[in-house]
Amino acid sequence: MSALITGVAGFVGCNLAEALLARGARVFGVDNFCRGTRANLERVQGHIRFNFTEVDMTDLAAYRTAFAEFQAVEPVTEVWHMAANSDIPAGIADAGIDLRDTFMTTYNTLELMKTFGVGVIAFASSSAIYGDLGERELAEDIGPLLPISNYGAMKLASEAAISAAAESYLQRAYLFRFPNVIGVPATHGVILDFVRRLAATPQRLEVLGNGTQQKSYLHVEELVDAMLFIREHAPEKVAVYNIGAGDAGVTVRFIAEETVRQVSPGAQIVFGQGNKGWVGDVPRFIYSVDKLRALGYRSRLGSIEAVRLALGQIIQQEQAAR
Amino acid sequence: MSALITGVAGFVGCNLAEALLARGARVFGVDNFCRGTRANLERVQGHIRFNFTEVDMTDLAAYRTAFAEFQAVEPVTEVWHMAANSDIPAGIADAGIDLRDTFMTTYNTLELMKTFGVGVIAFASSSAIYGDLGERELAEDIGPLLPISNYGAMKLASEAAISAAAESYLQRAYLFRFPNVIGVPATHGVILDFVRRLAATPQRLEVLGNGTQQKSYLHVEELVDAMLFIREHAPEKVAVYNIGAGDAGVTVRFIAEETVRQVSPGAQIVFGQGNKGWVGDVPRFIYSVDKLRALGYRSRLGSIEAVRLALGQIIQQEQAAR
Repeated sequence: MSALITGVAGFVGCNLAEALLARGARVFGVDNFCRGTRANLERVQGHIRFNFTEVDMTDLAAYRTAFAEFQAVEPVTEVWHMAANSDIPAGIADAGIDLRDTFMTTYNTLELMKTFGVGVIAFASSSAIYGDLGERELAEDIGPLLPISNYGAMKLASEAAISAAAESYLQRAYLFRFPNVIGVPATHGVILDFVRRLAATPQRLEVLGNGTQQKSYLHVEELVDAMLFIREHAPEKVAVYNIGAGDAGVTVRFIAEETVRQVSPGAQIVFGQGNKGWVGDVPRFIYSVDKLRALGYRSRLGSIEAVRLALGQIIQQEQAAR
Repeated sequence: MSALITGVAGFVGCNLAEALLARGARVFGVDNFCRGTRANLERVQGHIRFNFTEVDMTDLAAYRTAFAEFQAVEPVTEVWHMAANSDIPAGIADAGIDLRDTFMTTYNTLELMKTFGVGVIAFASSSAIYGDLGERELAEDIGPLLPISNYGAMKLASEAAISAAAESYLQRAYLFRFPNVIGVPATHGVILDFVRRLAATPQRLEVLGNGTQQKSYLHVEELVDAMLFIREHAPEKVAVYNIGAGDAGVTVRFIAEETVRQVSPGAQIVFGQGNKGWVGDVPRFIYSVDKLRALGYRSRLGSIEAVRLALGQIIQQEQAAR
């Protein structure tokens, strides 16, 4: 396997690169370091089967040049497209961010796969494509798909463009609908936010919303495992799979209390109003992973264990950064 | 009501303009005459409540100028976004066509609605967003949505962007999922194609595919009626409705035979292979309009009557053009 990972210096990308290298693959990587970091590449940078090029994928000509250089080393057999905006509120304030970083990176990737005859794409889609369907269980065959953030909208747009490409020139497409993913290297998210808030004000943790917002969390190492499992076992030409722990999840209150316990015991937790953290945030959803389980995969960690593991890792990360 | 119709010189746009003017609305219109024609505007051009500006909506600055000029005449209260690529095969050969003409026109329209504070959008979506779901009945709550053409993909991308905008700054959004729509002024489609083929070779009609491809057809006048009905009655903030006749439809063979009967009796019909006309064409689908019927709307014409009516109108159109 010779894989191109886009967004390789990001949270999921760098974990995926490690996993693919460990399985013997050649890994090409691109990133523009807009959100990804050079530090995230430290663990793979010197590897003999790893090649990296810094490029802005929204610049098609530059991206084509980078792609052609990889092709000259060894033909790319599949693309793992992980590059995207990951800052949902930023994308709500300015729709151009998700248009460019989430959708146009997909569009340009498809154009180059067509140009260079690369037939397999694996795509980091998101539970955000479902929008807010209330109490309905989110399975892959549910609709209508009415995302409430530009992030979700441009992930759905990307799925759609990939699906059309699969009908026309791709051989296989994997659309992984990610849950809330946690772990390290953490760049954003509620756990990192709480750890940093408590570092700044050890006696007091302010929480957006009333703390009843409940979500299921998956650890990034299990996310990578699940993607590779689906890549190996899914029979569909266009394989759409929710990935997740499949439990009811944990509340923001639980995460706040765990963080206080591990970082600053005794700190006061101050809750806000309502059960939405910000515009575009879905308050609570039940995420079905029945299809993934039927394929034979089951995560080892529930949301509680995943949060505890990630919290410990993020505390370490933040201490190392000081 | 003060409505901006995008793609006003197109097939649906010009019929919609007439209907809105007849209901007393002020109508602003934009078109770039890429697929729409000046001839299509003849019936509304002189109307005292109609203003038209030729503009390429993908040029945001030019579009903004046109929009501002309309605002100065009378504030736009809603946008009916009908502009799109309508040539599905062209969009499969070059993904840039649907990206630009179907999606970026939506994206720019939303940007300007945000800028100018226009709160209501009505959007010409499509049954193509469903892709090929086999024998499953296509209702609004079905998934996964895996379009098989870039046309369908960029319609779905547009729905998604509108949905996110509705969460953030729009007041109301109407997503009309169009069926196969027929009538005049016809610019493409199977009926026009057959009429023109028979005009060129009166003894012989060659048909793509084996003729068993079956689709439901709605007449454009009923489509406009249905949209206005939904606009008036739908209770949802983001109202997603399939529009259609709700019958099993007619086969390509039926349309070929009807056309031969009315245009060139006795001509030989020569069928091809398979039941797909081209890449991206969904061979057969069952389109649910239960939600629309529950709202209280039912089309008067079934597919057979709609085809016969449109066929007569298209024959007239082609004779007048000679």
